[in-house]
Amino acid sequence: MEIQYILELIGTFVFAISGALAVDEKDQDWFGAGFTGFVTAIGGGTLRDILLGSYPLVWIADVQFLYAIFAGILFASVFYKWLLRLRRTLSLFDTLGIALFTIVGTEKALSLGVDPVIAAIMGMFTAVMGGVIRDTLTNETPVIFQKEVYASPCLAWAFVYIGLANLEVHRTFAFLLSVLLIIVIRLVAVKYNLSLPKFKRIK
Amino acid sequence: MEIQYILELIGTFVFAISGALAVDEKDQDWFGAGFTGFVTAIGGGTLRDILLGSYPLVWIADVQFLYAIFAGILFASVFYKWLLRLRRTLSLFDTLGIALFTIVGTEKALSLGVDPVIAAIMGMFTAVMGGVIRDTLTNETPVIFQKEVYASPCLAWAFVYIGLANLEVHRTFAFLLSVLLIIVIRLVAVKYNLSLPKFKRIK
Amino acid sequence: MEIQYILELIGTFVFAISGALAVDEKDQDWFGAGFTGFVTAIGGGTLRDILLGSYPLVWIADVQFLYAIFAGILFASVFYKWLLRLRRTLSLFDTLGIALFTIVGTEKALSLGVDPVIAAIMGMFTAVMGGVIRDTLTNETPVIFQKEVYASPCLAWAFVYIGLANLEVHRTFAFLLSVLLIIVIRLVAVKYNLSLPKFKRIK
Repeated sequence: MEIQYILELIGTFVFAISGALAVDEKDQDWFGAGFTGFVTAIGGGTLRDILLGSYPLVWIADVQFLYAIFAGILFASVFYKWLLRLRRTLSLFDTLGIALFTIVGTEKALSLGVDPVIAAIMGMFTAVMGGVIRDTLTNETPVIFQKEVYASPCLAWAFVYIGLANLEVHRTFAFLLSVLLIIVIRLVAVKYNLSLPKFKRIK
Repeated sequence: MEIQYILELIGTFVFAISGALAVDEKDQDWFGAGFTGFVTAIGGGTLRDILLGSYPLVWIADVQFLYAIFAGILFASVFYKWLLRLRRTLSLFDTLGIALFTIVGTEKALSLGVDPVIAAIMGMFTAVMGGVIRDTLTNETPVIFQKEVYASPCLAWAFVYIGLANLEVHRTFAFLLSVLLIIVIRLVAVKYNLSLPKFKRIK
Repeated sequence: MEIQYILELIGTFVFAISGALAVDEKDQDWFGAGFTGFVTAIGGGTLRDILLGSYPLVWIADVQFLYAIFAGILFASVFYKWLLRLRRTLSLFDTLGIALFTIVGTEKALSLGVDPVIAAIMGMFTAVMGGVIRDTLTNETPVIFQKEVYASPCLAWAFVYIGLANLEVHRTFAFLLSVLLIIVIRLVAVKYNLSLPKFKRIK
């Protein structure tokens, strides 16, 4: 799917930006920012492909993804002031990246013939594990453990996408609908400060 | 070995429970608890199989393991109060899981034809690395770096199991004996607060 | 290349020493020191081979690497006092290990036929990711995020090595020259406290 490839490159570019800007320490140098941008952009898809044994990895086979990452890091540096003022827009970009990667990752896992439950988990991993690895390396508590609804809509809509695909809805339509719904739910959750039920009821 | 498969499912169930209960923060939500339960249950075996290049991963090929994890997480939520009162019992379950996974992991590595030293390391990894990955993601210091004897008996008894297997002792007998001995040593170590010799003698 | 194999074993031995000594807590036991020594020594090369799908892993196929690691950990314990007095020498050893592993890793990635940009990244990963994984497991901020110039010369000279190899310079000469130059740059950077430009210019 040609449009999917372009969306994947855009997602990679967007994730590299959000990764490069993630570490807010004033003594962060170019190398550190590049490293976090790189890990954020490729971490999720890399983990998915390693778990599924799907070689070669996307960014190793196709050097376009590296260029998308370099472009994202450069963009983050050049437009740094402007991006900071646009924090809300940036968060929208991050949400867009997550939504795209969830469905791209689910689609890829399905195409490798795994169980749909596994495929949905792989979709969610594709979207959020790059950020989780970045946060772990930089000693932050990964965002998925914080209370804001972040990873769970990815998992939920990965299942919906699989359902739509099974109903023989047109793939591109199912793809765009699922991406859109992840974005909407995430934005609503942030706006109204929604969170999932607590796991531990006592205390 | 039919009994080994059932023990492996039980080990997965037990590890999912201990993983889901591991994060004690009051704002832990369902997703976070599920994620830590999942990572704890599959992390060690997944690392072993990736290092050995043994695909497909157990929990991807056989969806029963996912159900065992879901059951463990649900169990942890439903019986939360009861499990807290049973902390000592829970720790016994954790020890049971570690002992089972050590020998299952060693056995699997041996069956892939690696050097016995590697097989013993893989057995120990199978048992403890799920917890290590969970602790790393949640910014805890992994339990294997704390002073209680935790991972070293796994490594020791993985070697004993390999020795017994080489002596052509019946596999099921060697399996059960090794599992039992890991449990006994661990319980004795906790009871008498034993620890390994310090690495750095000066200070 | 026979000399390359011997240098790789020496690099593994040196990294195991620096890993075993990395955790400075007084209650570090033998198991913990061995574990950090092991992870530091094999982490980078293991990550490289997993990303490239190159199986079996070096230390699983060839048990000599395990013996080099055990020797390094034993050496670190026996000569602990002496090594502490030699901190500067130890740092030189670490630099030697990094330089060797960068070029060995780049060479290996090139031999697997990947894009030169990927090969240079893999060379740098081989050198620094063992330490990054160790620091992440022990809750330290990885050294590559600290201001001292550490990983960037590896990346730079990996490219130079690829350039020299393309110019059909004799491989052993290109190898030794690149290793030497990484060491020199690193020592100069530490001596004059050089650092890369900051990523974020405002604040």
